[in-house]
Amino acid sequence: MTELLPIGYVRNSAETPADLSHMVSRIEVLPEFVQGLEGVEDGEEIIVLFLFHRSLGYELKVHPKGDERNSLIGVFASRSPRRPNPIGMTQVKVVRREGSSLFVEGLDALNGSPVIDIKPAVRRDQRDIKCK
Amino acid sequence: MTELLPIGYVRNSAETPADLSHMVSRIEVLPEFVQGLEGVEDGEEIIVLFLFHRSLGYELKVHPKGDERNSLIGVFASRSPRRPNPIGMTQVKVVRREGSSLFVEGLDALNGSPVIDIKPAVRRDQRDIKCK
Repeated sequence: MTELLPIGYVRNSAETPADLSHMVSRIEVLPEFVQGLEGVEDGEEIIVLFLFHRSLGYELKVHPKGDERNSLIGVFASRSPRRPNPIGMTQVKVVRREGSSLFVEGLDALNGSPVIDIKPAVRRDQRDIKCK
Repeated sequence: MTELLPIGYVRNSAETPADLSHMVSRIEVLPEFVQGLEGVEDGEEIIVLFLFHRSLGYELKVHPKGDERNSLIGVFASRSPRRPNPIGMTQVKVVRREGSSLFVEGLDALNGSPVIDIKPAVRRDQRDIKCK
């Protein structure tokens, strides 16, 4: 089935999972994809899809936050990084774009995570509706 | 790099892209992944990641909605299905779960689209904060 290709990589100082919700990360977009960033505006909310590249395997039932005191739930009812397809998704705010670098706030991805997609959080057609 | 495996398929009557935002679709989860649905509740908002399986290739600049009257923008500033990694993402509402079937409202994916992940829209830890 479809094989994923990185369009860039996360660069930050996060080496362990922690509260990264206010950290600014740099997404280093690969040269061949930089043109695709045109129109991504400062201050805009975007969705970043990335790979949990350090995650190995998965189970169908997980203890939320990896804490055994939390009751087991299905992996699809959780945000566990250990998933059948190890894809993370976070809505972040664009701080600024500088050439091939996109600085974003609130990305809870570890340093070195491959980025596989960037999308506007709000669809263009829904924005249009709001403007009318 | 990481290869994607379907965890299920979208079943609905959508054969062409249109306004599917109020349609109820059935996600047929494969038997080996059904246990992972435990804890996905009726009425809950979830994120569905799926493949744009009919999408072929991509360009870095696109006309929004495929309409040439719209100025070209970068593919990462758009929701075009023709993307470097052809992954779609939609927030939907769970209508009900029946065994391996998850009925959801608002999924703008064509019939037969492979589903690759389901996540709660609101993180468990953020819900906890709200409850306190």
